[in-house]
Formats: sequence, C-alpha cells, structure tokens
Amino acid sequence: MAQPLQALRHDGGILWALDQTLLPWQERWLKLRDAQGVADALKRLSIRGAPLIGVASGYGVALELARDHGPDSLQRAHDTLIAARPTAVNLAYAVKRVAEAAAAHPPGPGRAGAALDEARAIEHQEIAASAAIAAHGADLLSELRVRRILTHCNAGALAAPGRGTALAPIAELHARGELELVLATETRPLLQGARLTAYELGRLGIEHAVIVDGAAAGLIARGEVDAVLVGCDRVAANGDVANKVGTYGHALAASAARIPFVVAGPCSTIDPETSSGAEIVIEHRDPWEVATVPSESSGARFRIAPDDTRCLNPAFDVTPAELITAFVTERGVACPVDHERIAGLLHAAALR
Amino acid sequence: MAQPLQALRHDGGILWALDQTLLPWQERWLKLRDAQGVADALKRLSIRGAPLIGVASGYGVALELARDHGPDSLQRAHDTLIAARPTAVNLAYAVKRVAEAAAAHPPGPGRAGAALDEARAIEHQEIAASAAIAAHGADLLSELRVRRILTHCNAGALAAPGRGTALAPIAELHARGELELVLATETRPLLQGARLTAYELGRLGIEHAVIVDGAAAGLIARGEVDAVLVGCDRVAANGDVANKVGTYGHALAASAARIPFVVAGPCSTIDPETSSGAEIVIEHRDPWEVATVPSESSGARFRIAPDDTRCLNPAFDVTPAELITAFVTERGVACPVDHERIAGLLHAAALR
Repeated sequence: MAQPLQALRHDGGILWALDQTLLPWQERWLKLRDAQGVADALKRLSIRGAPLIGVASGYGVALELARDHGPDSLQRAHDTLIAARPTAVNLAYAVKRVAEAAAAHPPGPGRAGAALDEARAIEHQEIAASAAIAAHGADLLSELRVRRILTHCNAGALAAPGRGTALAPIAELHARGELELVLATETRPLLQGARLTAYELGRLGIEHAVIVDGAAAGLIARGEVDAVLVGCDRVAANGDVANKVGTYGHALAASAARIPFVVAGPCSTIDPETSSGAEIVIEHRDPWEVATVPSESSGARFRIAPDDTRCLNPAFDVTPAELITAFVTERGVACPVDHERIAGLLHAAALR
Repeated sequence: MAQPLQALRHDGGILWALDQTLLPWQERWLKLRDAQGVADALKRLSIRGAPLIGVASGYGVALELARDHGPDSLQRAHDTLIAARPTAVNLAYAVKRVAEAAAAHPPGPGRAGAALDEARAIEHQEIAASAAIAAHGADLLSELRVRRILTHCNAGALAAPGRGTALAPIAELHARGELELVLATETRPLLQGARLTAYELGRLGIEHAVIVDGAAAGLIARGEVDAVLVGCDRVAANGDVANKVGTYGHALAASAARIPFVVAGPCSTIDPETSSGAEIVIEHRDPWEVATVPSESSGARFRIAPDDTRCLNPAFDVTPAELITAFVTERGVACPVDHERIAGLLHAAALR
C-alpha cells in the first residue's frame, strides 16, 4: 500500500505544503516561513479544503510569532490570515483559537511556543476527527447498502489532515470490501475532482471514474449512483451547507432520484453564528479561473472564452438542509432536519 | 451590425463548413467533398447542433451522389452518414429524406440533382423554422417578463441554420430592447458555451457572462436568472427532451426556484417513434474529451486527470417533460404536459 498522503508538515520552523495547484502533474513542496506566505498559498489554493485551511492558518500565526517576537506580530498575523479566504469558517476559527492561546503570554518565545502548541493541537484534533468520520460514515453507508458513490470536488487527505472528510468513509468502506465504484466530478473551474480526487483514489487503489460536473444529474437519474457524499466548507446552525460550487445541483439530483445525499465534515465546520445559508457570504473568485483551463504542468493556463468575454466565478453554493439526508461528523451522524440532534452537536461545538 | 453567422455553405460542389472545434481562436473553413468527409466532420464535432447536423448530412448524401454516379453510392452515403452520430434524430431524418428523393431517380446526374434540391429544401425549412422560433419564443419570454436568461451549450447560428434555436428568441428579445443579460454555461467537456455561445453573443452585441456548469443551480436559487432556455437534440413523443449533458440539472434547479424552463427546437427534432426519454440512446463519446482540455488554438489538448484515470463521457441527458414549462417550435408554443397540443405538433411533424 502507498504511503498515506500528508499535505502539510511543520518541521524545523517551516511549514511544508504540497502545492495542490500543480497536482497531479508535479509533486512540489512549498516552504512557508511566515503568515504572508501561508496567506498567499491559501489565496492561490496551493493549500485548500476547509479543515486543511484551518490547520495551515493556525500554523501561519505560529510561524509569524516565531519569526518576529515584537508586540505587533500577533495582530499582523491575525489580519493577514483572516483576509485570505472569506467562506471557510475553519480559517477564522483556527486563527482566533491560536491567537487567543498566544495572547495569554507576553510577546516573545513563550508566546510563539504557545501558538505552535495550539496549532499542533488543532492538527491532531482534525486527524482524530477524520478517523472518527471514516468510521461513522462507513457504518452509515454500509447500513444504507451504498456501493457506488458520487463525490464532488476533493474532500480527501489533500483537504483535511488524516484521511479527509468525504473520502475518509469512502476509504474505510473500500477497506471493508464493500465499495464498488466512486464517480468523481471534475469540479470546474479548478478541477479538484479530476486532478486531486482522482490522484488520491488512484493512490488508494479505489476503482473510480471521472465525469464532467454536468453529467452527474443524468447518471444519478439513470440509477448509476447509490449515494452522493461530499465535504463542506461551512454548515449553518439550521443545517444549510455551503460547499464547492456545483454541490447544490447534485443534491437536487439525488433528491429527485431518492438516493441519500450525505455531507461529511468535522464539527469545526459548523458555524453556530450563522443561522441559515442565506447569511453565508459566497466568495467570488477571479473570473480568470473560469475563462481559462490548465495548459501545462507548470500551472500556465489557456484561455477558452473569447478575449473580451466576462466571466462570473462564485466559488460555493448553498444546499438547503431539507435536501441533506445525513451529516457525518466526528461525534456521530445527524439528520439536519433533526433539530434536537443538531442542537446537541452545536452545543458540543460551542464547548470546544 | 456584424455579418450574420453562416456556419455551412454549399457552393460549386463543395460544402464549406466553419470548423467549430477551432472557435473562438481561429475561423477556419473545411472544404467537404463527399459523404465520408461530412461524416468525419460530424464525428469530431467540427459541425454540430441538431438542425445543422441534419442539414450537413443532407448535403453529405448530395455530395456523394454528385461525385459518384454509380449504383452503390446512395447506399454508401446513407450508411456512412447514419453511423456518424447516434442521438440526433435530425441526422437520420435528413439522410432518409434526401435518400428517398434521390431514389425516385435512376443513378446519374438526375439523381444527384434531386438529392441536392432536397438538401437545399431542408436547409431553407430550417432557416424559416429558426425565424419562426425567434418570434414565438420572444413573444413567450416577453409575456413572462424574462430579462435574464441562462442557456446551456450552443443553440445559435452555429447549431442551426438562420439564427439558431434557443439563441434565436434571445436575439429577438435583444432586438426588442427587452433583454438584460445572458448567462452562458461553459458546457464541459467541449466548452460549446464558453467557446461558441460567447462568440455568437459577442458578435450580436448581447450582454453576457460565462459561468461553469456547476454554478448554474446556485445562481438560479439566488434569484439571478428569470428563465432557462435551451435547445434540444431529440424530443420524445411524451415531451421528454434529450439535450447536451448538464441540461437536466439546470431543469431541476429551475423547477426548485419556480422559474420557467423553456426548450426551443424545430418540429424536426420531435421523434414520434420514441415514446419516452427512457428509449433514447445516450451517445457515449470518447473519454479523452473529459480527461483533457484545450491547450492551444490548434486544437491540441492537455490532460487534466492522472494518466491512468478512467473517464466516462455521456454526451446527453434526458429532461422529463414535467420539468419543462414550454416547448417553442416553428409552429408555436406548447406545454409538454398539454398532450392535446403535443399531439397536434406531432401530427404536423408526421405530415412533413
């Protein structure tokens, strides 16, 4: 079996990050030394996936404090990282948590050490969460007799420390010998499905096929999929889920075909401050991502639309809670319309 | 105003076809001289769009008969062209119609002339149909107070002689000063929306923006679209519609948001022999189209998925009649669940 993928590694005062913009063509590691470096890597999606964004930004604060023991470095690290990506709640959560741990100490090596400890604690929590999501999710899929799963974007080890979120139950179901096929939607504009999920599934030896995003609904309608399983970027208190653009359409297709639509994510993705999906700010990324496709393994891109064509690039969409069959977290499985159970998860999340 | 686009032109024993695989980067004309040349251009999508496929294949029969006056050329032309694309009913219809007109004459110049006359008649019918679809469709959109339209793939002058099918009412609404914005989905794998629809809308001076296919459902849910308007490749007798893969997902999103989902096409697209969408054969095209994206204006492509990754490439999907608000034809507007009206259209279609 191949080495488990590890997309981030903190070692010797450096955060090593596998540059995901270059996969599957090149395995190149970035050496990040400060908050700005981490923020830049987050912005250009060299590091991506809600839980991994959280862990990286926690380390970003720690790197900045280790590099600069002055009184301003904590605020600077905070502001630099918070501005990097607006939608993922994990980023704000991790930065706040590491900053609070650091702020309990005066500027200096003690503060830097406290920040690093907290960043490591977040990483270890996410690894444990991934393992628990794998077990709970596989139990659920097994119970539902799911053998052919459609997933969108990438919610594997490249998106979350450990085995990922949505790909963790898939890997576990495969290990149990119950998985037949994974359909991975390519996920335009940045092709995380075709590039990253296919790369991970290939390493794991899991039978899979890539389809264009528009092919999902028709294949689901024709009975070729038993369940849809996706990760999530932010979950509102009412169970509405923001995830990679395209997710909502797959949820509609699953609902029309009466197959389960399952969302996997750590409780850190639940945002008790956001009452419903209508309040979630949808990040609009550079229209150039839509106007172009990769043309070389160096990351160069080729324009597909006429030169003067305007493009719109909403990076996420919102799937309403009523379309979600189950929400798999490290604390167990909840049905989003089961408000009592959601409230329990939220209570637990508030305690963290 | 720019010259109207004309994607096909028969002149001096040659069928000139604008090579749509090279748009918007290059405007290169193919010189087609026989049935095999037309079939090859259809297979590689240099000529595409259901009505244009029909017209081109009609001319394909005529070219072959003009080139070879022998007794076998009619059967050869028929077989070569019928095999080129399985889903579009227009191809089989046009080949059959031209072949029947030709078969009424003995092999020789008379047969070739009859075939050419019939191919021209089909083209003129399609041009008239496009004009009528423009008027009926714009009346409907105007009545529904539609100002922001989402369209999928390309159903313009590059897909049908004249002004196209779905883009014809859009152009007419624009001419009436009632159109605000067209959202064009890029339409992976072959990007007919980003490449061709954006090119046509730009030439027409129509305000537009390109989005990835996965962004449509979220934008529709957020109230940014008043109606979805698409073309069609085959309409079953019960009103189910086969169209470019991705169409069904947009129909689900329109239905969930309670906005009109309108299909435009000539009656030649209605197939009375096919009782429902379940009977429509879905063409699976080369998986390489999914595994790659264009990387140069010469048509060279760059692989996006890992080398050994399997891809699936269904080229169409089926939208059930109950999701379709209206069907715009050259003979008027029908609601697909209005069986009496559909039967009337079918009766008219059977008379052609």
